[in-house]
Amino acid sequence: MNAATQLDCAWDATTFEQKLREQGRAYHIYHPFNVMLNTGTASREQIQGWVANRFYYQIAIPRKDAAILANCPDREVRRKWVERILDHDGHGDDAGGIEAWLRLAEAVGLERDQVTGLNRLIPGVRFAVDAYVNFARQAPWQEAVCSSLTELFAPDIHRQRLASWPEHYPWIDQLGLQYFRSRMSLAQRDVNHGLAVTLDYFRTREQQQRALEVLKFKLDVLWAMNDAMAQHYGVQP
Amino acid sequence: MNAATQLDCAWDATTFEQKLREQGRAYHIYHPFNVMLNTGTASREQIQGWVANRFYYQIAIPRKDAAILANCPDREVRRKWVERILDHDGHGDDAGGIEAWLRLAEAVGLERDQVTGLNRLIPGVRFAVDAYVNFARQAPWQEAVCSSLTELFAPDIHRQRLASWPEHYPWIDQLGLQYFRSRMSLAQRDVNHGLAVTLDYFRTREQQQRALEVLKFKLDVLWAMNDAMAQHYGVQP
Repeated sequence: MNAATQLDCAWDATTFEQKLREQGRAYHIYHPFNVMLNTGTASREQIQGWVANRFYYQIAIPRKDAAILANCPDREVRRKWVERILDHDGHGDDAGGIEAWLRLAEAVGLERDQVTGLNRLIPGVRFAVDAYVNFARQAPWQEAVCSSLTELFAPDIHRQRLASWPEHYPWIDQLGLQYFRSRMSLAQRDVNHGLAVTLDYFRTREQQQRALEVLKFKLDVLWAMNDAMAQHYGVQP
Repeated sequence: MNAATQLDCAWDATTFEQKLREQGRAYHIYHPFNVMLNTGTASREQIQGWVANRFYYQIAIPRKDAAILANCPDREVRRKWVERILDHDGHGDDAGGIEAWLRLAEAVGLERDQVTGLNRLIPGVRFAVDAYVNFARQAPWQEAVCSSLTELFAPDIHRQRLASWPEHYPWIDQLGLQYFRSRMSLAQRDVNHGLAVTLDYFRTREQQQRALEVLKFKLDVLWAMNDAMAQHYGVQP
Protein backbone atom coordinates (compact mmCIF):
# COMPACT_ATOMS: atom_id res chain seq x y z
CA MET A 1 0.00 0.00 0.00
CA ASN A 2 1.60 3.30 -1.00
CA ALA A 3 1.44 6.49 1.02
CA ALA A 4 -1.45 7.95 -0.94
CA THR A 5 -3.54 4.81 -0.46
CA GLN A 6 -2.68 4.81 3.23
CA LEU A 7 -3.94 8.36 3.53
CA ASP A 8 -7.09 7.34 1.63
CA CYS A 9 -7.72 4.71 4.25
CA ALA A 10 -7.06 7.11 7.11
CA TRP A 11 -9.89 8.12 9.40
CA ASP A 12 -10.87 11.77 9.19
CA ALA A 13 -10.06 13.84 12.27
CA THR A 14 -13.55 13.50 13.77
CA THR A 15 -13.59 9.73 13.41
CA PHE A 16 -10.03 9.41 14.70
CA GLU A 17 -10.85 11.50 17.75
CA GLN A 18 -13.96 9.39 18.30
CA LYS A 19 -11.84 6.22 18.17
CA LEU A 20 -9.47 7.69 20.72
CA ARG A 21 -12.37 8.63 23.00
CA GLU A 22 -13.86 5.15 22.68
CA GLN A 23 -10.73 3.80 24.33
CA GLY A 24 -12.14 5.33 27.48
CA ARG A 25 -14.04 2.11 28.02
CA ALA A 26 -10.75 0.75 29.42
CA TYR A 27 -10.19 3.72 31.74
CA HIS A 28 -9.61 2.77 35.36
CA ILE A 29 -12.77 4.62 36.33
CA TYR A 30 -14.30 1.15 35.79
CA HIS A 31 -11.69 -0.73 37.80
CA PRO A 32 -13.20 -2.46 40.86
CA PHE A 33 -10.72 -0.71 43.14
CA ASN A 34 -11.70 2.71 41.82
CA VAL A 35 -15.38 1.85 41.87
CA MET A 36 -14.97 0.91 45.51
CA LEU A 37 -13.19 4.20 46.30
CA ASN A 38 -15.76 6.34 44.57
CA THR A 39 -18.90 4.54 45.72
CA GLY A 40 -17.95 5.00 49.33
CA THR A 41 -17.16 1.49 50.53
CA ALA A 42 -13.41 1.91 50.89
CA SER A 43 -11.84 1.73 54.31
CA ARG A 44 -9.56 4.40 55.66
CA GLU A 45 -6.62 2.10 55.02
CA GLN A 46 -7.61 1.53 51.42
CA ILE A 47 -7.95 5.25 50.80
CA GLN A 48 -4.63 5.92 52.46
CA GLY A 49 -3.05 3.15 50.42
CA TRP A 50 -4.42 4.62 47.21
CA VAL A 51 -3.24 8.14 48.05
CA ALA A 52 0.22 6.93 49.08
CA ASN A 53 0.66 4.75 46.01
CA ARG A 54 -0.76 7.23 43.55
CA PHE A 55 1.79 9.72 44.90
CA TYR A 56 4.42 7.79 42.99
CA TYR A 57 2.51 8.50 39.80
CA GLN A 58 2.23 12.15 40.74
CA ILE A 59 5.97 12.61 41.20
CA ALA A 60 6.67 10.75 37.96
CA ILE A 61 4.55 13.13 35.88
CA PRO A 62 6.96 16.09 35.71
CA ARG A 63 9.82 13.74 34.83
CA LYS A 64 7.67 12.14 32.13
CA ASP A 65 6.85 15.59 30.79
CA ALA A 66 10.49 16.64 30.92
CA ALA A 67 11.39 13.53 28.92
CA ILE A 68 8.92 14.69 26.27
CA LEU A 69 10.52 18.15 26.25
CA ALA A 70 13.96 16.59 26.00
CA ASN A 71 12.85 14.66 22.91
CA CYS A 72 10.90 17.46 21.27
CA PRO A 73 12.64 19.73 18.74
CA ASP A 74 9.54 21.91 18.27
CA ARG A 75 9.89 25.02 20.39
CA GLU A 76 6.21 25.98 20.11
CA VAL A 77 5.18 22.58 21.46
CA ARG A 78 7.76 22.83 24.26
CA ARG A 79 6.50 26.27 25.24
CA LYS A 80 3.05 24.81 25.84
CA TRP A 81 4.19 21.49 27.24
CA VAL A 82 6.41 23.04 29.90
CA GLU A 83 3.27 24.44 31.55
CA ARG A 84 2.54 20.92 32.76
CA ILE A 85 5.83 20.84 34.62
CA LEU A 86 5.14 24.23 36.16
CA ASP A 87 1.68 23.03 37.22
CA HIS A 88 2.92 19.88 38.89
CA ASP A 89 6.16 21.07 40.44
CA GLY A 90 4.75 24.49 41.23
CA HIS A 91 6.10 27.80 39.96
CA GLY A 92 6.33 31.19 41.62
CA ASP A 93 3.49 31.45 44.16
CA ASP A 94 1.81 28.28 42.96
CA ALA A 95 2.83 25.39 45.21
CA GLY A 96 1.86 22.97 42.46
CA GLY A 97 0.08 19.67 42.02
CA ILE A 98 2.54 17.48 43.91
CA GLU A 99 2.20 19.71 46.95
CA ALA A 100 -1.60 19.59 46.54
CA TRP A 101 -1.37 15.80 46.55
CA LEU A 102 0.64 15.89 49.78
CA ARG A 103 -2.15 17.99 51.31
CA LEU A 104 -4.61 15.34 50.21
CA ALA A 105 -2.33 12.79 51.88
CA GLU A 106 -2.43 14.77 55.11
CA ALA A 107 -6.20 15.14 54.82
CA VAL A 108 -6.59 11.35 54.72
CA GLY A 109 -4.40 10.99 57.79
CA LEU A 110 -1.01 10.20 56.33
CA GLU A 111 2.25 11.72 57.45
CA ARG A 112 4.06 13.65 54.74
CA ASP A 113 7.30 11.77 55.34
CA GLN A 114 5.64 8.37 54.98
CA VAL A 115 4.35 9.44 51.61
CA THR A 116 7.47 11.13 50.25
CA GLY A 117 9.56 8.24 51.60
CA LEU A 118 7.45 5.88 49.46
CA ASN A 119 7.13 3.53 52.45
CA ARG A 120 3.84 2.08 51.23
CA LEU A 121 4.70 1.86 47.56
CA ILE A 122 3.65 -1.48 46.06
CA PRO A 123 6.12 -2.93 43.52
CA GLY A 124 3.40 -3.41 40.88
CA VAL A 125 2.53 0.28 41.11
CA ARG A 126 6.17 1.25 40.82
CA PHE A 127 6.70 -0.93 37.75
CA ALA A 128 3.63 0.41 35.99
CA VAL A 129 4.59 4.03 36.62
CA ASP A 130 8.19 3.40 35.62
CA ALA A 131 6.96 1.81 32.39
CA TYR A 132 5.17 5.06 31.59
CA VAL A 133 8.23 7.24 32.26
CA ASN A 134 10.46 4.91 30.27
CA PHE A 135 8.04 5.00 27.38
CA ALA A 136 8.18 8.80 27.38
CA ARG A 137 11.97 8.71 27.37
CA GLN A 138 12.26 6.23 24.52
CA ALA A 139 9.30 6.74 22.22
CA PRO A 140 8.98 9.46 19.59
CA TRP A 141 7.77 12.52 21.45
CA GLN A 142 4.47 12.55 19.58
CA GLU A 143 3.72 9.04 20.85
CA ALA A 144 4.52 10.17 24.37
CA VAL A 145 2.13 13.09 23.87
CA CYS A 146 -0.52 10.68 22.63
CA SER A 147 -0.02 8.50 25.69
CA SER A 148 -1.03 11.46 27.84
CA LEU A 149 -4.51 11.46 26.33
CA THR A 150 -5.96 9.51 29.22
CA GLU A 151 -6.58 13.11 30.27
CA LEU A 152 -9.57 12.89 27.97
CA PHE A 153 -11.18 10.77 30.66
CA ALA A 154 -9.72 12.39 33.76
CA PRO A 155 -12.32 15.12 34.38
CA ASP A 156 -15.00 12.44 34.91
CA ILE A 157 -12.99 10.58 37.52
CA HIS A 158 -12.13 13.80 39.35
CA ARG A 159 -15.78 14.86 39.22
CA GLN A 160 -16.75 11.49 40.68
CA ARG A 161 -14.32 11.95 43.55
CA LEU A 162 -15.49 15.48 44.27
CA ALA A 163 -19.12 14.38 44.18
CA SER A 164 -18.86 11.26 46.32
CA TRP A 165 -15.98 11.61 48.74
CA PRO A 166 -17.37 14.39 50.95
CA GLU A 167 -20.55 12.38 51.54
CA HIS A 168 -18.94 8.98 52.03
CA TYR A 169 -15.76 10.01 53.77
CA PRO A 170 -16.71 12.94 56.00
CA TRP A 171 -13.54 12.31 58.03
CA ILE A 172 -11.45 13.68 55.14
CA ASP A 173 -10.87 17.43 55.37
CA GLN A 174 -12.44 18.78 52.18
CA LEU A 175 -9.60 21.24 51.67
CA GLY A 176 -7.56 18.17 50.88
CA LEU A 177 -9.62 17.63 47.73
CA GLN A 178 -8.24 20.78 46.10
CA TYR A 179 -6.03 18.70 43.81
CA PHE A 180 -9.07 17.20 42.09
CA ARG A 181 -10.65 20.64 41.68
CA SER A 182 -7.53 22.15 40.16
CA ARG A 183 -7.16 19.32 37.68
CA MET A 184 -10.67 19.81 36.27
CA SER A 185 -9.64 22.92 34.31
CA LEU A 186 -5.97 22.07 33.81
CA ALA A 187 -6.78 18.66 32.37
CA GLN A 188 -9.06 20.32 29.84
CA ARG A 189 -6.37 22.77 28.72
CA ASP A 190 -3.77 20.01 28.54
CA VAL A 191 -5.93 17.60 26.62
CA ASN A 192 -6.73 20.18 23.94
CA HIS A 193 -3.04 20.56 23.23
CA GLY A 194 -2.24 16.85 23.38
CA LEU A 195 -5.18 16.05 21.13
CA ALA A 196 -4.14 18.68 18.57
CA VAL A 197 -0.61 17.24 18.40
CA THR A 198 -1.99 13.72 18.07
CA LEU A 199 -4.53 14.52 15.36
CA ASP A 200 -1.82 16.36 13.46
CA TYR A 201 0.91 13.73 13.73
CA PHE A 202 -0.86 10.40 13.28
CA ARG A 203 -2.05 10.73 9.69
CA THR A 204 -2.21 7.38 7.96
CA ARG A 205 -4.50 4.60 9.11
CA GLU A 206 -1.46 2.64 10.27
CA GLN A 207 -0.28 5.58 12.35
CA GLN A 208 -3.75 6.13 13.74
CA GLN A 209 -3.90 2.49 14.78
CA ARG A 210 -0.56 3.00 16.48
CA ALA A 211 -2.02 5.98 18.35
CA LEU A 212 -4.81 3.75 19.66
CA GLU A 213 -2.25 1.20 20.80
CA VAL A 214 -0.24 3.89 22.54
CA LEU A 215 -3.29 5.18 24.35
CA LYS A 216 -4.20 1.62 25.30
CA PHE A 217 -0.71 1.17 26.76
CA LYS A 218 -1.27 4.20 29.00
CA LEU A 219 -4.69 2.94 30.01
CA ASP A 220 -2.99 -0.35 30.91
CA VAL A 221 -0.54 1.55 33.12
CA LEU A 222 -3.37 3.09 35.12
CA TRP A 223 -5.29 -0.18 35.21
CA ALA A 224 -2.24 -2.16 36.36
CA MET A 225 -1.70 0.33 39.19
CA ASN A 226 -5.24 -0.36 40.35
CA ASP A 227 -4.77 -4.12 39.96
CA ALA A 228 -1.71 -3.96 42.20
CA MET A 229 -3.59 -1.96 44.80
CA ALA A 230 -6.64 -4.24 44.63
CA GLN A 231 -4.37 -7.22 45.16
CA HIS A 232 -2.64 -5.60 48.10
CA TYR A 233 -5.51 -3.87 49.89
CA GLY A 234 -8.41 -6.04 48.73
CA VAL A 235 -11.68 -4.82 47.27
CA GLN A 236 -14.97 -4.70 49.13
CA PRO A 237 -17.98 -5.44 46.95
CA MET B 1 40.57 3.89 51.26
CA ASN B 2 37.36 3.96 53.31
CA ALA B 3 34.69 6.64 53.09
CA ALA B 4 35.96 8.56 56.12
CA THR B 5 39.48 8.68 54.69
CA GLN B 6 38.11 9.78 51.34
CA LEU B 7 36.28 12.64 53.00
CA ASP B 8 39.49 13.53 54.87
CA CYS B 9 41.24 13.87 51.53
CA ALA B 10 38.43 15.92 50.03
CA TRP B 11 39.03 19.55 49.14
CA ASP B 12 37.07 22.02 51.23
CA ALA B 13 34.35 23.90 49.35
CA THR B 14 36.51 26.95 48.68
CA THR B 15 39.37 24.89 47.26
CA PHE B 16 37.02 22.73 45.21
CA GLU B 17 35.34 25.80 43.72
CA GLN B 18 38.78 27.23 42.97
CA LYS B 19 39.74 24.01 41.16
CA LEU B 20 36.56 24.21 39.11
CA ARG B 21 37.26 27.84 38.22
CA GLU B 22 40.83 27.00 37.22
CA GLN B 23 39.41 24.79 34.50
CA GLY B 24 38.49 28.06 32.81
CA ARG B 25 41.95 28.05 31.29
CA ALA B 26 40.50 25.60 28.74
CA TYR B 27 37.47 27.77 27.97
CA HIS B 28 36.99 28.53 24.30
CA ILE B 29 37.47 32.20 25.01
CA TYR B 30 41.11 31.30 24.21
CA HIS B 31 40.32 29.38 21.04
CA PRO B 32 41.88 31.00 17.96
CA PHE B 33 38.51 31.12 16.24
CA ASN B 34 36.95 32.98 19.16
CA VAL B 35 39.97 35.24 19.54
CA MET B 36 39.57 36.12 15.89
CA LEU B 37 35.85 36.87 16.32
CA ASN B 38 36.38 39.05 19.35
CA THR B 39 39.45 40.93 18.22
CA GLY B 40 37.68 42.13 15.12
CA THR B 41 39.47 40.34 12.30
CA ALA B 42 36.64 37.97 11.36
CA SER B 43 34.98 38.32 7.99
CA ARG B 44 31.25 38.62 7.56
CA GLU B 45 31.17 35.02 6.39
CA GLN B 46 33.01 33.81 9.47
CA ILE B 47 30.68 35.68 11.77
CA GLN B 48 27.66 34.37 9.91
CA GLY B 49 29.10 30.86 10.08
CA TRP B 50 29.63 31.14 13.80
CA VAL B 51 26.11 32.46 14.44
CA ALA B 52 24.52 29.81 12.23
CA ASN B 53 26.49 26.95 13.78
CA ARG B 54 26.17 28.13 17.33
CA PHE B 55 22.39 28.16 16.77
CA TYR B 56 22.50 24.38 16.94
CA TYR B 57 23.93 24.68 20.44
CA GLN B 58 21.25 27.19 21.37
CA ILE B 59 18.40 24.91 20.35
CA ALA B 60 20.01 21.98 22.13
CA ILE B 61 20.12 23.77 25.48
CA PRO B 62 16.43 23.45 26.45
CA ARG B 63 16.50 19.77 25.50
CA LYS B 64 19.64 19.27 27.57
CA ASP B 65 17.96 21.03 30.48
CA ALA B 66 14.81 18.98 30.05
CA ALA B 67 16.93 15.81 30.14
CA ILE B 68 18.28 16.98 33.50
CA LEU B 69 14.72 17.59 34.75
CA ALA B 70 13.68 14.16 33.50
CA ASN B 71 16.48 12.56 35.51
CA CYS B 72 16.08 14.65 38.64
CA PRO B 73 13.86 13.40 41.47
CA ASP B 74 14.39 16.55 43.56
CA ARG B 75 11.43 18.86 43.09
CA GLU B 76 13.19 21.89 44.59
CA VAL B 77 16.02 21.52 42.11
CA ARG B 78 13.56 21.06 39.24
CA ARG B 79 11.66 24.19 40.23
CA LYS B 80 14.83 26.21 39.81
CA TRP B 81 16.19 24.34 36.83
CA VAL B 82 13.02 24.75 34.78
CA GLU B 83 13.70 28.50 34.68
CA ARG B 84 16.46 27.80 32.19
CA ILE B 85 13.97 26.21 29.83
CA LEU B 86 11.63 29.16 30.20
CA ASP B 87 14.52 31.54 29.50
CA HIS B 88 15.63 29.79 26.34
CA ASP B 89 12.31 28.77 24.84
CA GLY B 90 10.56 31.88 26.06
CA HIS B 91 7.56 32.03 28.36
CA GLY B 92 4.58 34.34 28.44
CA ASP B 93 5.66 37.70 27.01
CA ASP B 94 9.34 36.76 26.95
CA ALA B 95 10.28 35.57 23.47
CA GLY B 96 13.27 33.76 24.93
CA GLY B 97 16.93 33.18 24.18
CA ILE B 98 16.50 31.14 21.01
CA GLU B 99 14.42 33.92 19.50
CA ALA B 100 17.07 36.43 20.62
CA TRP B 101 19.67 34.33 18.84
CA LEU B 102 17.59 34.40 15.66
CA ARG B 103 17.52 38.19 15.92
CA LEU B 104 21.31 38.12 16.17
CA ALA B 105 21.32 35.94 13.07
CA GLU B 106 19.21 38.51 11.22
CA ALA B 107 21.47 41.31 12.48
CA VAL B 108 24.49 39.60 10.90
CA GLY B 109 22.64 39.23 7.62
CA LEU B 110 21.33 35.68 7.78
CA GLU B 111 17.84 34.61 6.80
CA ARG B 112 15.88 33.05 9.61
CA ASP B 113 15.00 29.98 7.53
CA GLN B 114 18.62 29.29 6.64
CA VAL B 115 19.45 29.24 10.30
CA THR B 116 16.51 27.22 11.57
CA GLY B 117 16.93 24.83 8.62
CA LEU B 118 20.50 24.17 9.84
CA ASN B 119 21.73 24.59 6.26
CA ARG B 120 25.20 25.67 7.35
CA LEU B 121 25.62 23.25 10.23
CA ILE B 122 29.05 21.62 10.22
CA PRO B 123 29.07 17.92 11.19
CA GLY B 124 31.77 18.44 13.83
CA VAL B 125 29.61 21.05 15.53
CA ARG B 126 26.60 18.77 15.43
CA PHE B 127 28.51 15.87 16.95
CA ALA B 128 29.94 17.98 19.75
CA VAL B 129 26.53 19.43 20.67
CA ASP B 130 24.88 16.02 20.44
CA ALA B 131 27.54 14.62 22.76
CA TYR B 132 26.53 17.22 25.32
CA VAL B 133 22.80 16.42 25.09
CA ASN B 134 23.49 12.70 25.25
CA PHE B 135 25.63 13.18 28.30
CA ALA B 136 22.78 15.02 30.01
CA ARG B 137 20.40 12.21 29.14
CA GLN B 138 22.62 9.43 30.39
CA ALA B 139 24.71 10.79 33.24
CA PRO B 140 23.52 11.19 36.84
CA TRP B 141 21.66 14.49 36.89
CA GLN B 142 24.21 16.04 39.24
CA GLU B 143 26.96 15.38 36.71
CA ALA B 144 24.85 16.99 34.01
CA VAL B 145 24.39 19.99 36.32
CA CYS B 146 28.13 20.11 36.87
CA SER B 147 28.73 20.05 33.12
CA SER B 148 26.74 23.28 32.85
CA LEU B 149 29.35 25.10 34.93
CA THR B 150 31.08 26.49 31.86
CA GLU B 151 28.62 29.27 32.74
CA LEU B 152 31.24 30.28 35.29
CA PHE B 153 33.23 31.59 32.35
CA ALA B 154 30.42 32.79 30.10
CA PRO B 155 30.00 36.35 31.39
CA ASP B 156 33.57 37.17 30.32
CA ILE B 157 33.05 35.96 26.78
CA HIS B 158 29.74 37.82 26.48
CA ARG B 159 31.36 40.96 27.89
CA GLN B 160 34.12 40.62 25.30
CA ARG B 161 31.58 40.40 22.50
CA LEU B 162 29.62 43.39 23.76
CA ALA B 163 32.81 45.42 24.13
CA SER B 164 34.43 44.62 20.80
CA TRP B 165 31.75 43.81 18.24
CA PRO B 166 30.16 47.27 17.93
CA GLU B 167 33.54 48.82 17.18
CA HIS B 168 34.88 46.13 14.85
CA TYR B 169 31.68 45.16 13.13
CA PRO B 170 29.66 48.37 12.75
CA TRP B 171 27.61 46.67 10.04
CA ILE B 172 25.88 44.51 12.70
CA ASP B 173 22.73 46.12 14.11
CA GLN B 174 23.49 46.47 17.81
CA LEU B 175 19.97 45.45 18.76
CA GLY B 176 21.04 42.02 17.58
CA LEU B 177 23.47 41.79 20.49
CA GLN B 178 20.66 41.65 23.03
CA TYR B 179 21.23 37.93 23.56
CA PHE B 180 24.67 38.57 25.01
CA ARG B 181 23.31 41.31 27.28
CA SER B 182 20.52 39.13 28.63
CA ARG B 183 22.88 36.26 29.37
CA MET B 184 25.12 38.41 31.58
CA SER B 185 22.63 38.38 34.45
CA LEU B 186 20.96 35.03 33.71
CA ALA B 187 24.28 33.19 33.56
CA GLN B 188 25.13 34.55 36.99
CA ARG B 189 21.85 33.34 38.51
CA ASP B 190 22.18 29.95 36.79
CA VAL B 191 25.75 29.39 37.82
CA ASN B 192 25.00 30.08 41.47
CA HIS B 193 22.47 27.27 41.44
CA GLY B 194 24.62 24.86 39.44
CA LEU B 195 27.59 25.55 41.66
CA ALA B 196 25.58 24.97 44.84
CA VAL B 197 24.37 21.59 43.54
CA THR B 198 27.90 20.63 42.50
CA LEU B 199 29.56 21.65 45.76
CA ASP B 200 26.88 19.75 47.65
CA TYR B 201 26.96 16.54 45.62
CA PHE B 202 30.63 15.93 44.87
CA ARG B 203 31.97 15.32 48.37
CA THR B 204 34.88 12.91 48.35
CA ARG B 205 38.14 13.71 46.59
CA GLU B 206 37.33 11.03 44.03
CA GLN B 207 33.96 12.62 43.32
CA GLN B 208 35.52 16.06 43.14
CA GLN B 209 38.04 14.78 40.61
CA ARG B 210 35.11 13.40 38.65
CA ALA B 211 33.48 16.84 38.72
CA LEU B 212 36.63 18.33 37.20
CA GLU B 213 36.55 15.68 34.47
CA VAL B 214 32.90 16.40 33.76
CA LEU B 215 33.55 20.11 33.47
CA LYS B 216 36.51 19.39 31.22
CA PHE B 217 34.24 17.30 29.00
CA LYS B 218 31.92 20.28 28.57
CA LEU B 219 34.84 22.58 27.89
CA ASP B 220 35.92 20.07 25.22
CA VAL B 221 32.45 20.28 23.65
CA LEU B 222 32.73 24.05 23.27
CA TRP B 223 36.35 23.82 22.12
CA ALA B 224 35.55 21.12 19.54
CA MET B 225 32.75 23.29 18.14
CA ASN B 226 35.31 26.04 17.60
CA ASP B 227 37.81 23.59 16.11
CA ALA B 228 35.23 22.48 13.57
CA MET B 229 34.40 26.08 12.67
CA ALA B 230 38.08 27.04 12.44
CA GLN B 231 38.65 24.11 10.12
CA HIS B 232 35.69 25.03 7.95
CA TYR B 233 35.90 28.82 7.86
CA GLY B 234 39.64 29.27 8.47
CA VAL B 235 41.21 31.62 11.01
CA GLN B 236 42.86 34.90 10.16
CA PRO B 237 45.85 35.68 12.33
